[in-house]
Amino acid sequence: MKKLKRSARLVDMTQYLLARPHTLISLTAFADRYQSAKSSISEDLAIIKEVFEEQGIGELNTLAGAAGGVRFAPKTRKDVALERLLSICRQLEQPDRLLPGGYLYMTDLLGQPAMMQELGRMFASAFADRDIDVIMTVETKGIPLALAASFFLNLPVVIVRRDHKVTEGSAVSINYVSGSAKRIQTMSLGRRALKEESRVLIIDDFMKAGGTIQGMVDLLHEFRAVVAGVGVFVESGEVAQDERLLHDYVSLARLTEVDLKTRQIKVQPGNYFNSDSK
Amino acid sequence: MKKLKRSARLVDMTQYLLARPHTLISLTAFADRYQSAKSSISEDLAIIKEVFEEQGIGELNTLAGAAGGVRFAPKTRKDVALERLLSICRQLEQPDRLLPGGYLYMTDLLGQPAMMQELGRMFASAFADRDIDVIMTVETKGIPLALAASFFLNLPVVIVRRDHKVTEGSAVSINYVSGSAKRIQTMSLGRRALKEESRVLIIDDFMKAGGTIQGMVDLLHEFRAVVAGVGVFVESGEVAQDERLLHDYVSLARLTEVDLKTRQIKVQPGNYFNSDSK
Repeated sequence: MKKLKRSARLVDMTQYLLARPHTLISLTAFADRYQSAKSSISEDLAIIKEVFEEQGIGELNTLAGAAGGVRFAPKTRKDVALERLLSICRQLEQPDRLLPGGYLYMTDLLGQPAMMQELGRMFASAFADRDIDVIMTVETKGIPLALAASFFLNLPVVIVRRDHKVTEGSAVSINYVSGSAKRIQTMSLGRRALKEESRVLIIDDFMKAGGTIQGMVDLLHEFRAVVAGVGVFVESGEVAQDERLLHDYVSLARLTEVDLKTRQIKVQPGNYFNSDSK
Repeated sequence: MKKLKRSARLVDMTQYLLARPHTLISLTAFADRYQSAKSSISEDLAIIKEVFEEQGIGELNTLAGAAGGVRFAPKTRKDVALERLLSICRQLEQPDRLLPGGYLYMTDLLGQPAMMQELGRMFASAFADRDIDVIMTVETKGIPLALAASFFLNLPVVIVRRDHKVTEGSAVSINYVSGSAKRIQTMSLGRRALKEESRVLIIDDFMKAGGTIQGMVDLLHEFRAVVAGVGVFVESGEVAQDERLLHDYVSLARLTEVDLKTRQIKVQPGNYFNSDSK
């Protein structure tokens, strides 16, 4: 790379860091890339850090020492996230989303790239400090959320299938009971998709009693893997506490009321917004 | 936003543009955001444009006039793309990817966020100048690619399902013949997922004879929608020309040889790299 002026260097460092979340970049790598002194690089990083934090798009963490460097952790400030989430709640409350059986149509939202980025960034903020090797979801509607989170956390995704496909190679299948419908269903994961003892973050779009997620937890046991966290976009608040199969999870939104007669839907912020932490 | 120094403004403009691909941003919006003169904003944009183009991450196009502004089009330069694609081909050629029936295991690659971003950016480069309203794919393995492309093109995604789910509302289903296996299968899309006369870019992970993609084309007709383009990650070169159902498509890679006995796999760049254009 040819030697850049300071202004051009700032632009390039910004795009370079944004494209490599949760990746440690040594000051030496930057100094080489720009043929600049480490002291200049450090000054530039201080400017970038301030802007990223003021704009609420993430943290720039500096690790000192020989093995040190800088790492960008994409995050959304809680107050910014809450504002965005409330606007998403209003969209989820549109009466024409109501489907037979009290289901909520949200496929359109899961196909909006900007909204997926926002939700993925919220999951990335919620789980930034956990020790995670891989993100898991089950087809189909959880996939956009899992992929968005995977980018901001720089983690691979594995997708559990509803049936066993030839393109997955040999697979482990389990049966599980979908908590709300009490139906027995199957899910399956290719043997080579997950290393033993992986630490897994489970992401899904919707949780009622939690049967599907409990199925994924059971599947993880077959791989001797462990649950490092569970994140859902919308949880149903219409489940009695003792019917819930799962208690330790992060929800971004909570469906608190569905009235089929008046077609009234109420969606509120999920438990992620309960605590007062930043 | 408080008034920023030039250096901080460059950092913020860079992150702001990168987060909003294919979105027209007026100079006035930037001038207001930074409480700066349009002439200073124009100078900053010129610096950003030069870095983006030199680094091969995209174009910054300026539209003059009252309704004018600036638009970031993420692109990968062909030479950079080819280099990355060749390294992906080498990964696809690993002998242990070979599955019974001559299928290729590539689920792990489709779960790598950095690789999905690279492939998504290649699709975004290939289709940047077409008039497209929405991206369509069929579950499950095409989804990561479609979502990655959707972000860089700033377009919504619709996902065709293999069966009709209650959470999609009323749906249109069609039968299609998978070209290679000659099996009759079903695919389905929710009525409200696609507006009539939409211009649709179809993205999928693998194409042999093209039966699945032809199925999506047939489904589009049911919605009076039109095909604006077809992009596949890997096409199989083991199909005779007269067996191919589809001729107008962009492929990033081409599987040219699968020898089950010697376990030899050969993958080469796809037709996207045929032309000499940038």
